[in-house]
Amino acid sequence: MIPVLHFERTELAARQDATCRAMRAQGLDALLLFRQESLFYLTGFDTFGYVYFQCIVLTADGSMTLLTRAPDLRQARHTSVIEDIRIWEDRAGSDPAGALQAILAEKGLKGARVGIELEAYGLTGRNWEAVRTRLDGFCRLEDASDLVSRLRLVKSPAEIAYVRRAAELADRAYDRAVELAAPGADEGTILAAMQGAVFEGGGDYPGNEFIIGSGEGALLCRYFTGRRKLDPKDQLTLEWAGVYRRYHAAMMRTVLVGKASQRQRDMHAACAEALEACEAALRPGRPIGEVFDAHARVLDGRGYRAHRLNACGYAMGTTFAPNWMDWPMFYTGNPEPAAPGMAFFLHMILMDSDHGEAMTLGHSVLVTESGTERLSRSSLELVVA
Amino acid sequence: MIPVLHFERTELAARQDATCRAMRAQGLDALLLFRQESLFYLTGFDTFGYVYFQCIVLTADGSMTLLTRAPDLRQARHTSVIEDIRIWEDRAGSDPAGALQAILAEKGLKGARVGIELEAYGLTGRNWEAVRTRLDGFCRLEDASDLVSRLRLVKSPAEIAYVRRAAELADRAYDRAVELAAPGADEGTILAAMQGAVFEGGGDYPGNEFIIGSGEGALLCRYFTGRRKLDPKDQLTLEWAGVYRRYHAAMMRTVLVGKASQRQRDMHAACAEALEACEAALRPGRPIGEVFDAHARVLDGRGYRAHRLNACGYAMGTTFAPNWMDWPMFYTGNPEPAAPGMAFFLHMILMDSDHGEAMTLGHSVLVTESGTERLSRSSLELVVA
Repeated sequence: MIPVLHFERTELAARQDATCRAMRAQGLDALLLFRQESLFYLTGFDTFGYVYFQCIVLTADGSMTLLTRAPDLRQARHTSVIEDIRIWEDRAGSDPAGALQAILAEKGLKGARVGIELEAYGLTGRNWEAVRTRLDGFCRLEDASDLVSRLRLVKSPAEIAYVRRAAELADRAYDRAVELAAPGADEGTILAAMQGAVFEGGGDYPGNEFIIGSGEGALLCRYFTGRRKLDPKDQLTLEWAGVYRRYHAAMMRTVLVGKASQRQRDMHAACAEALEACEAALRPGRPIGEVFDAHARVLDGRGYRAHRLNACGYAMGTTFAPNWMDWPMFYTGNPEPAAPGMAFFLHMILMDSDHGEAMTLGHSVLVTESGTERLSRSSLELVVA
Repeated sequence: MIPVLHFERTELAARQDATCRAMRAQGLDALLLFRQESLFYLTGFDTFGYVYFQCIVLTADGSMTLLTRAPDLRQARHTSVIEDIRIWEDRAGSDPAGALQAILAEKGLKGARVGIELEAYGLTGRNWEAVRTRLDGFCRLEDASDLVSRLRLVKSPAEIAYVRRAAELADRAYDRAVELAAPGADEGTILAAMQGAVFEGGGDYPGNEFIIGSGEGALLCRYFTGRRKLDPKDQLTLEWAGVYRRYHAAMMRTVLVGKASQRQRDMHAACAEALEACEAALRPGRPIGEVFDAHARVLDGRGYRAHRLNACGYAMGTTFAPNWMDWPMFYTGNPEPAAPGMAFFLHMILMDSDHGEAMTLGHSVLVTESGTERLSRSSLELVVA
């Protein structure tokens, strides 16, 4: 089986080299990769097999072994450059942590310094407990969750092309929502059309569910079950992402139905001003905490301190379920510097519980040599359907 | 805000009572709930906020406190019966595990026996490490991941109504796939139509991505990025779920395009026979490992030992991303007994790498007083488009 790769083998090899260099700089002999983001980034391996125990052992000299379940053997051969694949079998008394230890022993890593991605949805508390217990006294483990995540942050030209395509799919999804939003329209129909625009454009499932809520539900910023039909006067909050080759470009809007109140118009104007202030604050070399501060300055200055959130966005990348929020996040004091080639989602969210009114505005941007580039072609104007 | 609940408050209260009884039977003073499945089941709380630190502390006398981030405060009020909600804030140096300890201290749980759901995607290794370190010496923690999962297994009449609706949405999705599958058809269009059928029917995102693959990709049983168009002679493997109120009913088919080879017809006949053997073996009071054995007996007897998997299905329930595979699974030797009101997905999967041919067949069933009831109305006949 010849793998279907979405990057040149040389680019994947360069990512692996950079990872090994970073490992050596930190004195790590090996790295236990549990984050699906890291597996995809380094090898192309694309799966949701991380819902069970799954790990790549990468040594500082570049050797790579995947430990996974049988259903992922062909998946790895079809989607990745991984050559050494080991299988653990489902049965009563399965011991994948023991299989992992055997791989480490085989690679001569007894007594070694080994990094591990502890911040991984697939490495549940139970799995980590099994690994920790097994490897106690065998090698020295230390949390290295951020090592590959840091390398993923600045995108290559090939990656940026996928991010741009993702942003285009997000715009198309928005076009459909605007077309369909009207009194009596069913949220389920709108959601189907938006997600359909992404799939029909060759895109993927989002790392987390699109958010859709109207009426009181427009004040929520998570998906929840139970769709409703739009009232003659209503508000519809949407947060969604175009996703292409697993790269995300998120957007957010609150579309009004029937009529906009003066309060909603004011909230929208504040969100638009805050979004532009964030774009101006997101500059190469500057700490990204300043982006949050710009957002807060505008919204607090306009009297919305009580209605805003404590974060206003985060990085965009190849994130897998259940979460498209990549590291790092815009909150006050975050010292991470922005750099050219980073992609971010900026979301301005005002939820006024006293009046039951919501207003949101957001889209994805790319950090350039001199500032930021908006990846969305969609207007920031308030839409009243 | 009056919550929008999908179950009677009395039913939610009865689930909480049963959980507290099970806790007391195991000598637990409290339970730290990290599985989103458990949160939804016990309180209605519906969110993907578990991608960050989120926990319900349930004491054996029934008191309940949610610890989550600010964006989930309104979400909990809107979707659940939880009254006591505490917030931890995103900032450098955030300490949600410390906030959790403070709640335990407040509830007088110093020195207590406390169960914890370690098998939870939201409780990443890093989060568990923080909790473990914080609570070391404060109380006695023990893994209780299965306590609520066991209670979720047998569905109530209200739950079964949602499972039936989910199965109907799965059938509708299949109708659309059969309609669209043809030479030249785009996988992305088919995926959009299938997922659209679920959303338009008021359904939800699936716990994991639908699986779609053609050509060589038809031999895979995970989603992967990169859609293609169907060849004049092709095979299309689909695994999907109708989802309603978070309840799943999965299905699986390999649809052929152009022409079926004799080998594919034989594989299909074997899958159909195996599926029926599984339905006959899934009986109340019998260990579910026998279902796997029935599947293996048919497939191995027909010479497919090398092409089948080591599991042939699992329970269906209110699972959240990244995984719709609920506990327990059909593998050999699994001693869990089946009982009336349990819902399962049975999947027969043959992947013949030597000939590059795939055949699959699967659907969801309900265990009744005397045997099983098929929840899908779709024919098991081989479809050649």
